[in-house]
Amino acid sequence: MTAKKTKQNHKLPRLYVSQAIEAELLLPLDQDQWHYVRNVMRLVDGDEMMIFNGQHGEWRASLVYETKKRICLKPLLQTKPQPNQPELLYAFAPLKKGRLDYMIQKATELGASLLQPVLTDYTDNHKINLQKLAANAVEAAEQCTMLSVPQVAEPLKFDQFIAQFSKTHQIIFCDEAADSASPINVIAALKGQKICVLVGPEGGFSEAERQALLTLEQVTTISLGPRIMRADTAAIAALTLVQATIGDW
Amino acid sequence: MTAKKTKQNHKLPRLYVSQAIEAELLLPLDQDQWHYVRNVMRLVDGDEMMIFNGQHGEWRASLVYETKKRICLKPLLQTKPQPNQPELLYAFAPLKKGRLDYMIQKATELGASLLQPVLTDYTDNHKINLQKLAANAVEAAEQCTMLSVPQVAEPLKFDQFIAQFSKTHQIIFCDEAADSASPINVIAALKGQKICVLVGPEGGFSEAERQALLTLEQVTTISLGPRIMRADTAAIAALTLVQATIGDW
Repeated sequence: MTAKKTKQNHKLPRLYVSQAIEAELLLPLDQDQWHYVRNVMRLVDGDEMMIFNGQHGEWRASLVYETKKRICLKPLLQTKPQPNQPELLYAFAPLKKGRLDYMIQKATELGASLLQPVLTDYTDNHKINLQKLAANAVEAAEQCTMLSVPQVAEPLKFDQFIAQFSKTHQIIFCDEAADSASPINVIAALKGQKICVLVGPEGGFSEAERQALLTLEQVTTISLGPRIMRADTAAIAALTLVQATIGDW
Repeated sequence: MTAKKTKQNHKLPRLYVSQAIEAELLLPLDQDQWHYVRNVMRLVDGDEMMIFNGQHGEWRASLVYETKKRICLKPLLQTKPQPNQPELLYAFAPLKKGRLDYMIQKATELGASLLQPVLTDYTDNHKINLQKLAANAVEAAEQCTMLSVPQVAEPLKFDQFIAQFSKTHQIIFCDEAADSASPINVIAALKGQKICVLVGPEGGFSEAERQALLTLEQVTTISLGPRIMRADTAAIAALTLVQATIGDW
């Protein structure tokens, strides 16, 4: 019975809400949500959805059409508690448009908790629309039944990034020039530490950046294999290896 | 010096050719290659490219403009021998257009040697353009400095697929319903065997298909973690784990 119920919940549309969720406490939809619920999904008064806010777990909620212009969600029952998601920082050089969207979606699906754009010497996209990145992360979380949505941080220059994170995190540096070797044991040795996965732009890191990373104590270099992966593939591969070895899998 | 030379080679345009490659033996370009070399890349007589055919390694070649309409490649020097790529079969339910293209590119980047479409109960794309899939694989290999291009096989129905591969290969079945657990040890136990990674469509496998897989002796079930991944993400995650654990990394 439980399996069947989960399947039913899984088929309901999912919506991220920014408000606190409490049983019976009505949550008015904003303009975009109103349009999605009414015009895209064509849901009516009394229809049910799954909602989450990244803090209070997942809830089954019903729609209350107070007027044509004011639609609310009424949380009925918490169906899943908020999971205790481990911190996993994903630092990346912003790619050009399509691949950047894709990378944000994939990092969300793989459970990154913070997305940190880093402007490196060879970064080819310096005009980043942070709101769009955040909307992409929300959409991926809605579609993939995630209960957490990664935060999107303001971009940092490479040096700022190093200064900010090299003291607090173990930085896993995906180095194209590293000797080919399975990174599983190297990653396994970092168990229990705060992890930041760092992937460079399509052109890789500059030699100055590489040397700066290689001299830092809290940097662990891994190989992504004998093939040269595109930066978005490298992101998924590195996050997969970290999650499956020492993370949340 | 070697590193610098590799970098230079790496920057030259790369072209997949279907003919055998031998030093000095002229290879006439076909219509599409002619257009790419002349109109897209604007290369001229004497310009150099890197070429590969999946059999004879990578070569530096120069262009010979015999006439405006007839351009040949003259292989000069083999820069890399053909690697002995291990067999890695990737079986997948064809996704809809954009995600399918993406999945083919990613499976190529991750070193799959054979791409096997499988038509399952919930497959939502039954009209597959095999030529386009093959062209996508070639393009990914050209861009990512791969020396092998995966073959694209004719689609098989689920039952045909099982009948054909369950005797010869260890099928790694990415099961959404499997208990969450790191698959690394499970995959490591398959070292030395012929591997086929099987990923279902967005809707997953039907219960009948799942039961059929679970009863087969040569099927190993793995979890792809607590999150529900989209099918294209699952493909990259599963191939990454197999390659990094027992494959070519």
